[in-house]
Amino acid sequence: TVPRKQDPPITRELPVSLEEVFNGCTKKMKISHKRLGPDGRSVRNEDKILTIQVKKGWKEGTKITFPKEGDETPSNIPADIVFVLKDKSHPVFKREGSDVVYTSKISLREALCGCSVNIPTVDNRTIPLTFTDIIRPGTKRRITNEGLPLPKSPDQRGDLIVEFDIRFPERLTASSREVLERVLPA
Amino acid sequence: TVPRKQDPPITRELPVSLEEVFNGCTKKMKISHKRLGPDGRSVRNEDKILTIQVKKGWKEGTKITFPKEGDETPSNIPADIVFVLKDKSHPVFKREGSDVVYTSKISLREALCGCSVNIPTVDNRTIPLTFTDIIRPGTKRRITNEGLPLPKSPDQRGDLIVEFDIRFPERLTASSREVLERVLPA
Repeated sequence: TVPRKQDPPITRELPVSLEEVFNGCTKKMKISHKRLGPDGRSVRNEDKILTIQVKKGWKEGTKITFPKEGDETPSNIPADIVFVLKDKSHPVFKREGSDVVYTSKISLREALCGCSVNIPTVDNRTIPLTFTDIIRPGTKRRITNEGLPLPKSPDQRGDLIVEFDIRFPERLTASSREVLERVLPA
Repeated sequence: TVPRKQDPPITRELPVSLEEVFNGCTKKMKISHKRLGPDGRSVRNEDKILTIQVKKGWKEGTKITFPKEGDETPSNIPADIVFVLKDKSHPVFKREGSDVVYTSKISLREALCGCSVNIPTVDNRTIPLTFTDIIRPGTKRRITNEGLPLPKSPDQRGDLIVEFDIRFPERLTASSREVLERVLPA
């Protein structure tokens, strides 16, 4: 008999939300594979639920392998099924490793004259920040320990990084423009 | 006799400046390799100059192969030597494929009240641009046909993209701040 070879691994995405990565979660993934009957020849279809414990802070690209869960035939070794963690996009936050980025929209007036902003956290709290200094394009504020759990030591956490989207006025009147020419440095 | 196998390719970087890519150029690269003597057994060192015609617009990663220019021994097939084009960084421009990016530093006053800027080109000319509209963070202006030659049709060219780095004032006096609070929209 010819030695049986294993089919190449089957890769599937495992989409997770930021909240699921923050808290950890259990994912049940349904697969369909062919299995051999007791006679070792007949092949039947079988559905199966694979359960994945997503640990706190797992990073995108983390692989979870279920050995030999692919199709079984009389002549093969079933493929491994490999799930690959994929971050779902989030309406408010952007994930950067164990850090989380929040973009605060402020007006140019707020950027120049100071402002208070409420920064949302991943666990639905709000952190108020007050700025008296000028906020430049590219300014970042790092709020430590408000990011995601570190995958290797989930008691520690990454940071919440606040970035700023400074909204410029749509238009300015001629008189406003004159005032700005006078007040702002060249 | 055992069949001779070729050594794996030897990869070397070929650094090119933006000007060299713009104009095309000839690069002479010196290599040292071992060659067999006429007796087919003795091995001697040999220096050699390899000449590479870098065509206009060639992209980073372009590979130029010199077959069998690696070390020769009685028992091998010499490796191929492969040069891989690598863009040198440029003090003024950033390359993006066939486009070239120039970042114009302007003050907030210029961004809000209008300004004229001189945009340098890759071939040492200057293009004056006048802005009367507000320039927001992230604003881009595309000057067509002032980029790099397209590698597959070097008579055509990419674009020169102008981006803006808007310098905010270092500080504002209390009275300037008051004026800005009044003049700028919330």
